[in-house]
Amino acid sequence: MPIYNAPVKDIQFLLHDVLKVSASDVPGYEDLEADFTSAVLEEAGKVARDVLAPLNASGDKEGCRLENGVVHTPKGFDKAFAAMKEGGWTALDCDPEYGGQGLPYLMGTAVGEIFVSANMAFNMYQGLTHGAYSAIHAHGTPEQKAKYLPKMVSCDWTGTMNLTEPHCGTDLGLMRTKAEPQDDGSYAITGQKIFISAGEHDLAENIIHLVLAKASGGPEGIKGVSLFIVPKFLVNEDGSLGARNGVSVGSIEEKMGIHGNATCVMNYDGAKGWLLGDLHKGMRAMFTMMNEARLGVGLQGYAVAEAAYQNAAAYAKDRLQGRAVTGAENPSGPADPLIVHPDIRRNLMDQKSFVEGARAFTFWGAHLIDRSVRLGDADAEGLISLMTPVIKGFQTDKGFEMAVNAQQVYGGHGYIEEWGMSQFARDARIAMIYEGANGVQALDLVGRKLAQDGGKHVMAFFEMVKSFVKENEGDERLAGFLQPLKKASKDLQSAGMYFMQNGIKNPNNALSGSYDFMHMMGHVCLGLMWARIAKAAYAGLDAGTGDRDFYEAKIATGRYYMARHLPATTMHLARIETGADPVMALAADAF
Amino acid sequence: MPIYNAPVKDIQFLLHDVLKVSASDVPGYEDLEADFTSAVLEEAGKVARDVLAPLNASGDKEGCRLENGVVHTPKGFDKAFAAMKEGGWTALDCDPEYGGQGLPYLMGTAVGEIFVSANMAFNMYQGLTHGAYSAIHAHGTPEQKAKYLPKMVSCDWTGTMNLTEPHCGTDLGLMRTKAEPQDDGSYAITGQKIFISAGEHDLAENIIHLVLAKASGGPEGIKGVSLFIVPKFLVNEDGSLGARNGVSVGSIEEKMGIHGNATCVMNYDGAKGWLLGDLHKGMRAMFTMMNEARLGVGLQGYAVAEAAYQNAAAYAKDRLQGRAVTGAENPSGPADPLIVHPDIRRNLMDQKSFVEGARAFTFWGAHLIDRSVRLGDADAEGLISLMTPVIKGFQTDKGFEMAVNAQQVYGGHGYIEEWGMSQFARDARIAMIYEGANGVQALDLVGRKLAQDGGKHVMAFFEMVKSFVKENEGDERLAGFLQPLKKASKDLQSAGMYFMQNGIKNPNNALSGSYDFMHMMGHVCLGLMWARIAKAAYAGLDAGTGDRDFYEAKIATGRYYMARHLPATTMHLARIETGADPVMALAADAF
Repeated sequence: MPIYNAPVKDIQFLLHDVLKVSASDVPGYEDLEADFTSAVLEEAGKVARDVLAPLNASGDKEGCRLENGVVHTPKGFDKAFAAMKEGGWTALDCDPEYGGQGLPYLMGTAVGEIFVSANMAFNMYQGLTHGAYSAIHAHGTPEQKAKYLPKMVSCDWTGTMNLTEPHCGTDLGLMRTKAEPQDDGSYAITGQKIFISAGEHDLAENIIHLVLAKASGGPEGIKGVSLFIVPKFLVNEDGSLGARNGVSVGSIEEKMGIHGNATCVMNYDGAKGWLLGDLHKGMRAMFTMMNEARLGVGLQGYAVAEAAYQNAAAYAKDRLQGRAVTGAENPSGPADPLIVHPDIRRNLMDQKSFVEGARAFTFWGAHLIDRSVRLGDADAEGLISLMTPVIKGFQTDKGFEMAVNAQQVYGGHGYIEEWGMSQFARDARIAMIYEGANGVQALDLVGRKLAQDGGKHVMAFFEMVKSFVKENEGDERLAGFLQPLKKASKDLQSAGMYFMQNGIKNPNNALSGSYDFMHMMGHVCLGLMWARIAKAAYAGLDAGTGDRDFYEAKIATGRYYMARHLPATTMHLARIETGADPVMALAADAF
Repeated sequence: MPIYNAPVKDIQFLLHDVLKVSASDVPGYEDLEADFTSAVLEEAGKVARDVLAPLNASGDKEGCRLENGVVHTPKGFDKAFAAMKEGGWTALDCDPEYGGQGLPYLMGTAVGEIFVSANMAFNMYQGLTHGAYSAIHAHGTPEQKAKYLPKMVSCDWTGTMNLTEPHCGTDLGLMRTKAEPQDDGSYAITGQKIFISAGEHDLAENIIHLVLAKASGGPEGIKGVSLFIVPKFLVNEDGSLGARNGVSVGSIEEKMGIHGNATCVMNYDGAKGWLLGDLHKGMRAMFTMMNEARLGVGLQGYAVAEAAYQNAAAYAKDRLQGRAVTGAENPSGPADPLIVHPDIRRNLMDQKSFVEGARAFTFWGAHLIDRSVRLGDADAEGLISLMTPVIKGFQTDKGFEMAVNAQQVYGGHGYIEEWGMSQFARDARIAMIYEGANGVQALDLVGRKLAQDGGKHVMAFFEMVKSFVKENEGDERLAGFLQPLKKASKDLQSAGMYFMQNGIKNPNNALSGSYDFMHMMGHVCLGLMWARIAKAAYAGLDAGTGDRDFYEAKIATGRYYMARHLPATTMHLARIETGADPVMALAADAF
């Protein structure tokens, strides 16, 4: 069975040495002292290791089962879910007014990574509840909040998001689900939604569906869409559960991975729903929580890769096969461990340097969300809005690639299900698709976010890179970080310039390069993270406190990223600068 | 259900316009006139479409089942296998002396692609038989050939390859399976082999296992390994089947894909085996057929990607979602088809340009094997020996990547099993692992093949690129091909130079870049193929015969490859030139 150990040391380093959270001006961060965060993370690590990880492979194998309208989750999920509730883990970063613990989003993110690494499919039940909680918290009336949030914070009730329909996913303007206003102020919701994660299951007393539907009288297309709260069981005034609502699961999907999570077809047959937020402004309500939701998926990308990496590294140290070309390193054994071979290391270093860089990037993103929400910092809000498609798109692409790399270390043993490496790859695959397929992330980045607020945020990002380089150029030790970062950032700026100069006469010139731009920007962001990490690690070495080996490994891993990942920006720039011509040359019927 | 249509037009173009087979001096090629090959390919296409493709998804879903020592293949596989035998497809490129049709290996490869695209798991039963046939054909005594080959050519008996053991895959020197000589000239084989594809099944009367084992008295390690023929049922002098041999299936593996093929644990309990080839020289016997076997796996890489691409392209033309940014292209419909979006095209063009280039590369490789075998052309043999790890490693990596890309076009529908796109990705994944994991291919390329015969073959390859460029520089229309090819080839040479200058003092400097080198070389090879294809397409246009749209699409697709795939060589070179330092910097316990 795969192992998993929470990377508490690395998380602590990011929180305290790199982000320096307890010295931050963000309200709530003053609580995040090193002893406290360490205790929380260690405890989360125990739950992950002892409760969640042992159910990961069995949940994949068993999957969910639909019988007579009831979805049965895999064996053990109920007890594990109870343990998560009991431990207060579902309430960590929720509003204390509704029973939450009020910790910053950053802390929820750090703990979330640990749970996702241990069991991604399981963690989705509470992850989606958190998303629905955020939507109601942001847009609900005081009555709605009082009615639903406490039970959702505790996960006595779980939540779902219902957007996709059989004929539309990305283009929700084509939506057919209808909402008819009723005399009692509610709406009757009718239609079919598909790909609804945790749409039905046996882990909670009630399920609160958030459903996008079209109410009559609104504009055509996406602007006429509204968001509704549709509980599985109606909730009485006193909070007790009433009648079963007109919503039911039609079937559950067989899919490539995340078998432990039920992906449902949901049928709404005049189900009672209540408007959440403003009529016809459902998409706006969705968008406000999109940064968090997409950051959460970007986190899945590297969190699954982290789990896969841990196993690949352990296997590479354990499995004896061949001899080091530079001379036997385990001369008394029948062969050397795999890890002596340069190409195995190349593979492991690709994984390790990506995962640790992505963790830093994601935490920084979570920190920006905290600044935006808790401080009302508009620059932080603009910046995270720009970064969101990169965190989601780049990290899930790379996370899957790295899970596949980890699988490769096992050779044939990676392909059979017994070792669990296939599952990591299969699970990681979905993160590239849901919450906006990565092509849509790239479109969002290049078609919308670059130009947002007059291009202010991307300029701020370039400025941030530039000042970091300038401030630290005096430190010779950082040259191996600053030079590649400057080069990569220059490539990224050239790409942006290309879009400006060529995208106006033909927007396809920009959109044909959107995917490459997203990846370039991901590399530059991780390059910046690694430069910051290296600076903090040198500071740690200089201070002479802490674990020298840890700091030195950080620096070496960062050097690898700069030397071996960042050169990708040159390739992406060359691809971008070919423009739309090669991409759009063929007539559709030549495909 | 996924569609599949054999790309007969493209195959014909490669055979006749690019490789000009019927004008070749290779014995047997004179039979390959356009009408003949077209008839064969069309017929193979019908079998693929009507018999094999319909069993692909069902075979994946049902999988193989082991009951009381018998492996049941999925429903319909038996009839399809009978149809393949009946049609003579299993005998296509086999020796007429044993009932084969004697067509060139190139023709077997072209037809093989079609069958693999339609149903990879199914096609493995005959593919492995072909491998075992080749080994016996090359190394068997006249008696062994007479005894086994006719039934293997007809696939009345199938074959297997038994190399891997639980504790060793790549490093076969650690092998524990023993062969004890018996008084009757046979050997008693005892040991356990794992990951044996088609090790047991219900499609054939007998299964001829080729088993690597250690006979006493040989040198330690890999040099003391011999190859044995171990039939499931002993074969009497008159060719009838005798007693059941001491070999049995222990279990079948649950795995990520190729569910229709039984991957078996095989137990040998004093099974009767007969030496194939020379004692203690089993690896040499394996190596002689390795080029073919690895080319066959490299073919799987792009053949599965071809099937995935066909479906992705069809879906992109059918699925309505969003509007073209340059103005509605389907104004009377509710939305435009996906294919109007630049990033969808970028994705499809990545797939299409890879698959068609890889097809050309593979066919060229098969042609080199024909030259080597049928003409005794030592240069061709050296060249294919150099190219084999590239065909295998590069094409299976990219093939998987492209199958994943094809899946991405479907969004959420790509992740559920219903549409079959998940299967393409899951099936394609194995090709990166078996027949030598791709890291081992890279090691073979850089650690062995580059320096083979004093570096003669890689120099010949560079010379080939150079002369092609020189010969065609007068044709302005080819500039978009020749310039990128020159640049990429120069990058590749620089990488080779780096290895020479730095690999001697520390071989890790070369081996840390082996994987990147394999990919670089793949790109240069496909670049050369596209340049040749473009030349042939322009010749077709100039001649004014044939299908202008086809030729123009070829040129546009090639331009895409040159503009958008070839820039990867710069990135790979930069990675290579960082040497071993960043790769080997960490102590093993820092992972």
